[in-house]
Amino acid sequence: MAPIGAAAGAVDGLSINLATVREQYNMRQAVEACLTQGITAISPWRDQVHAIGLAEAARIVADNRLRVTGLCRGGMFPAADATGQTAAIDDNKRAIDEAAALNADCLVLVVGGLAPGSRDISSARDMVADGIAAILPHARAAGIPLAIEPLHPMYAADRACVNTLEQALDICDLLGDGIGVAIDVYHVWWDPKLYEQIARAGAARRIFAHHICDWLVPTTDLLLDRGMMGDGVIDLKGIRAAIEKAGYHGTQEVEIFSAQNWWKKPGEEVLSTCIERFRTVC
Amino acid sequence: MAPIGAAAGAVDGLSINLATVREQYNMRQAVEACLTQGITAISPWRDQVHAIGLAEAARIVADNRLRVTGLCRGGMFPAADATGQTAAIDDNKRAIDEAAALNADCLVLVVGGLAPGSRDISSARDMVADGIAAILPHARAAGIPLAIEPLHPMYAADRACVNTLEQALDICDLLGDGIGVAIDVYHVWWDPKLYEQIARAGAARRIFAHHICDWLVPTTDLLLDRGMMGDGVIDLKGIRAAIEKAGYHGTQEVEIFSAQNWWKKPGEEVLSTCIERFRTVC
Repeated sequence: MAPIGAAAGAVDGLSINLATVREQYNMRQAVEACLTQGITAISPWRDQVHAIGLAEAARIVADNRLRVTGLCRGGMFPAADATGQTAAIDDNKRAIDEAAALNADCLVLVVGGLAPGSRDISSARDMVADGIAAILPHARAAGIPLAIEPLHPMYAADRACVNTLEQALDICDLLGDGIGVAIDVYHVWWDPKLYEQIARAGAARRIFAHHICDWLVPTTDLLLDRGMMGDGVIDLKGIRAAIEKAGYHGTQEVEIFSAQNWWKKPGEEVLSTCIERFRTVC
Repeated sequence: MAPIGAAAGAVDGLSINLATVREQYNMRQAVEACLTQGITAISPWRDQVHAIGLAEAARIVADNRLRVTGLCRGGMFPAADATGQTAAIDDNKRAIDEAAALNADCLVLVVGGLAPGSRDISSARDMVADGIAAILPHARAAGIPLAIEPLHPMYAADRACVNTLEQALDICDLLGDGIGVAIDVYHVWWDPKLYEQIARAGAARRIFAHHICDWLVPTTDLLLDRGMMGDGVIDLKGIRAAIEKAGYHGTQEVEIFSAQNWWKKPGEEVLSTCIERFRTVC
């Protein structure tokens, strides 16, 4: 297959998480729109890959020499019973295989919240550590690093019971090689131990991804009101400097869920705004 | 003044933060409704006190032998300039005086978020520590303990840049006596270091208040969708046991902001539900 878009001058260091334009484009369309503006690094979600088929997605990546900065997402380990836990582990192994087919830099893990009907977050955290341990050999064999993404504490119940970089790194230390973190500024910007833990993560070579967006004031929805870089209160340049000082010089990946704003704008405008903000405020 | 309500059998160990019924009652009405159901401990907000006047509020407390488990709230230290910081300190000193007039167990501090227009959370935190240091002598002289309430990280930008118990206790350790924490389960339940830090707080005799409500799944509003105890996912009994093991045996204070649910119900029903849940799930 021939390349589907002509790069208009590569935008070095910027990746677009395709959730950012998920309402505007399927994966193929999103890639075309990215390439038109010179963006050559992407991070798709599994449902976007499945919608066009893994083989086709892998062809698009290879033919356009795209950098895939991550596949979103594995995780979701806590379950009500052993059958559910096994199903989660099996699904994560498929996600690892998909990440390998896409030549992704890592598989991002959103680890899951409380098991259904449970109030035991400690037990959920144990299930997460056990689940990651169970898939890690498969990930190592596939050459796919696993990136735990600590999620903001407001998602502890229903999306991820790993909520700080310190906690994620403690899990990494237990598990050894092939596991690290995806640092999303939205989730960690508030943490009084952020800079200390970024340094720790860098020293251990565990920073696998750096996601950006912004925290709006006010925030009107817990999930779907993320801001464009520069429109909120996160010290993006400060966090970037710390991550680079810690030794990570990979891309900054824009991931914005914005039901009432950016998802309603033309995709081209969203992408051009990402580029402009990346160049000015990040 | 004669007592305004006859206790129907005291509900030991339960306090009602009057924000829980703020849409139904003024302070005087709330006290009457509490006493009717046997609740003899309350925690008013300053605007509720001001609405009826401090002298009248103090009379109601004294005449009814109410326990005031805290006055809400001081704090809000970060400001755009020195004038704003001084104004905040002066207002906190007035809050201390009001707490003393009400014979309150403590003044709860919601420390404030980023200064206006600022993205520098480290600077905000410095302003908080400086502000508390500036009012602490006044608090000690008045015999009013200051209780830093770490707020959920989703409030870091606009309400409180102290977001974990560990961070609050670090500030306490810097400042010495007369300063401790208010542990509100809503804000801290997710914290992987919660139990470790409760033990630390207890060992230092810094637990001054224990607030309860519940975290709903889903949560539809960042501020005004707190749940009644038992309706959410917080391990209330587990946290209570840890707080008691740490040596705190004060009241559990119900504080629920619920614009679409509990604030719309009759106050009597809210209070009777608080009692029933306090007795069964807390």
